[in-house]
Amino acid sequence: MALLVQKFGGTSVGSFERIEAVADHIARCARAGDALVVVLSAMAGETNRLLGLAHQVAADPDPRELDLLVSTGEQISISLMAMALQKRGLKAQALLGDQAGVRTDQRHGRGRIERVETERLDELLSQQIIPIVAGFQGRNPTGDVTTLGRGGSDTTAVALAAALKADECQIYTDVDGVYTTDPRVEPRARKMDTITFEEMLELSSLGAKVLQIRSVEYAGRYNVPLRVLSSFQPGEGTLITYEELSMDAPLVSGIAFSRDEASLTLVGVPDEANVAAQILTPISDAGIEVDMIVHTTTGEGRADFTFTVQRSDFSQAEALLQPVIAQLGIDRLKGDDGLCKVSVVGVGMKNHTGVASRMFQTLGQEGINVQLIATSEIKISVAVEEKYLELAVRSLHSAFNLAATE
Amino acid sequence: MALLVQKFGGTSVGSFERIEAVADHIARCARAGDALVVVLSAMAGETNRLLGLAHQVAADPDPRELDLLVSTGEQISISLMAMALQKRGLKAQALLGDQAGVRTDQRHGRGRIERVETERLDELLSQQIIPIVAGFQGRNPTGDVTTLGRGGSDTTAVALAAALKADECQIYTDVDGVYTTDPRVEPRARKMDTITFEEMLELSSLGAKVLQIRSVEYAGRYNVPLRVLSSFQPGEGTLITYEELSMDAPLVSGIAFSRDEASLTLVGVPDEANVAAQILTPISDAGIEVDMIVHTTTGEGRADFTFTVQRSDFSQAEALLQPVIAQLGIDRLKGDDGLCKVSVVGVGMKNHTGVASRMFQTLGQEGINVQLIATSEIKISVAVEEKYLELAVRSLHSAFNLAATE
Repeated sequence: MALLVQKFGGTSVGSFERIEAVADHIARCARAGDALVVVLSAMAGETNRLLGLAHQVAADPDPRELDLLVSTGEQISISLMAMALQKRGLKAQALLGDQAGVRTDQRHGRGRIERVETERLDELLSQQIIPIVAGFQGRNPTGDVTTLGRGGSDTTAVALAAALKADECQIYTDVDGVYTTDPRVEPRARKMDTITFEEMLELSSLGAKVLQIRSVEYAGRYNVPLRVLSSFQPGEGTLITYEELSMDAPLVSGIAFSRDEASLTLVGVPDEANVAAQILTPISDAGIEVDMIVHTTTGEGRADFTFTVQRSDFSQAEALLQPVIAQLGIDRLKGDDGLCKVSVVGVGMKNHTGVASRMFQTLGQEGINVQLIATSEIKISVAVEEKYLELAVRSLHSAFNLAATE
Repeated sequence: MALLVQKFGGTSVGSFERIEAVADHIARCARAGDALVVVLSAMAGETNRLLGLAHQVAADPDPRELDLLVSTGEQISISLMAMALQKRGLKAQALLGDQAGVRTDQRHGRGRIERVETERLDELLSQQIIPIVAGFQGRNPTGDVTTLGRGGSDTTAVALAAALKADECQIYTDVDGVYTTDPRVEPRARKMDTITFEEMLELSSLGAKVLQIRSVEYAGRYNVPLRVLSSFQPGEGTLITYEELSMDAPLVSGIAFSRDEASLTLVGVPDEANVAAQILTPISDAGIEVDMIVHTTTGEGRADFTFTVQRSDFSQAEALLQPVIAQLGIDRLKGDDGLCKVSVVGVGMKNHTGVASRMFQTLGQEGINVQLIATSEIKISVAVEEKYLELAVRSLHSAFNLAATE
């Protein structure tokens, strides 16, 4: 008998029909003999509805009160699910985050789970009662309800799986696994049966939005076997593993991408220590996320400094740089808000050279000009004009032999 | 500086406009220097919406899960109110029942408050932070969310006032106080400035639905000064007092009534001990509330036994009596499902005779036939044909000089 933590997202419980379908699924698993802990998100749209209520009352609502408000979303879905399971003759009990022992730090809106006190979960499991746990929420040391930020239900599931030493944490979503790239861009994309944690981290941070990155990090830290499956169709999904790299591991596992990128280049920056901090501090203070950063010395004590941001932050970033440009005596600012980012990811490239050259060769053959390059141990990212996105993804997908075999 | 517990019901917080109006009111009280604890119901209609969700999933949902579900209603209203107060520059904090220290017994759906642990409320009050407490809910010894049953927010307010030794518990509602009778039936009805607890108990149980009877009982037990006011219009409302009866107390304070009554009369019941229990046990086991009971010996070891129930329970009660009739050899069953009940209430009648005779004289003069009479120390109730309700109320209101003086 395996102990499984199963998490269902908002679309999986987004209607009465979906709730019944998920209840059927849980009932099947329970009757097959597995011990289950179920984690739910709010019904799709509910969190946004609640945020809308708050913003009708206050433009800038207090995060503490906001957490108390939005946490009702999961409270509703778990209650309804427990009822649906009881109707099927199963023993189930809905538990709020704090009842399931989820203790977070003090922060509201983006609390971090500090520990899980499993007494009550253990007690229910020993009585063959299925705990239906509200994801996304916990309580802090003050005794206040906190939420974990968007996607926090995944983190809840992983944290419970780690604390309970579950055999597997299964994330049910609206895709049936992790693909070599987005099938909407490359129809020949292949679902992977397994993927390493490192690759998954890179893929989810690069826009293959299957799992929240924090939950993947969390799973990696506690060695929780994590599986992504579809709640709409049967299948084994994709298992995220910690396996050591085998010799026949593919060089590249997948092609990730993100649209709506913009680059800002400062030309003629004094080539001094600390200049990067002076440039980037006002940007990050404004809450703007900086992604790729490139710094090139151009000689004569000058350098070019380029970084990318999301396109929606482009104008604000431009404005924020003006005082810095004046202060540091920078020659000029170039901007490009029509970029996208394409990345090849794979643990295989740790031990192999040649991935970068094959990547640039492929893009060059297609006439795609690379604007910016950033590399890590297991990924290479390029910024290119957005109109080339599909072409770049498909040609790289093909060059690295990722397509499904017939 | 007075410590006031102010409770606002569902219609008082039923829309964004109403929430803002109540927030204005609270802000005025706070700035006038009073220390406040605010208790809220769910926004009007929300509890029924949540019950509707439950019943879409399960015909007979588990009370534990149902409590968890419906308790979100108050959670939403308190969060929004705290935000509305913070927007006004006030310090406020929304608290769930359990955060406000409300501990109940184990029962779901109709929990009873066993104690209030006031540490957190005391702490907030000492920091001049206004606690905004979710009414109607608490936690039981298992750590599960319980609800107190309909109208439970009044009970929460009274319990907090008792535990905090508040100077007054103010129940804001959609009426501006307690009237000598329903102004929709008798336009000359007069708002009372004060009323005794005993009278209030009789009036609320008789259908002057201003306050939940349980909260009045609770207030009486802990000597909590209770005031009913309107959240829609200014005024002092009605203060419910524990004062000793003064010599000039009016004989009769008010005329209460309820529609939709039905009577069942068993004719020719063996006049034995325990026969009443045999008749009423199946009725109360079915959850049917029995109101007036009259038992008259008719001689020769036989008696007539009459009781009243709500009209909606009439058919079921009739059916439940059939086995009893057969078993006890009762002659026959008479029923009347077209009755109403009219009651005169007043602590003054404790020390005076003559109220009953004036009551019957008044009804008799109007040609109203009394079907059934029930009396307590401070009230006399009669069942009459429902078509006479308005006439009976108005003529009694006038006979006991209750009308507003110009």
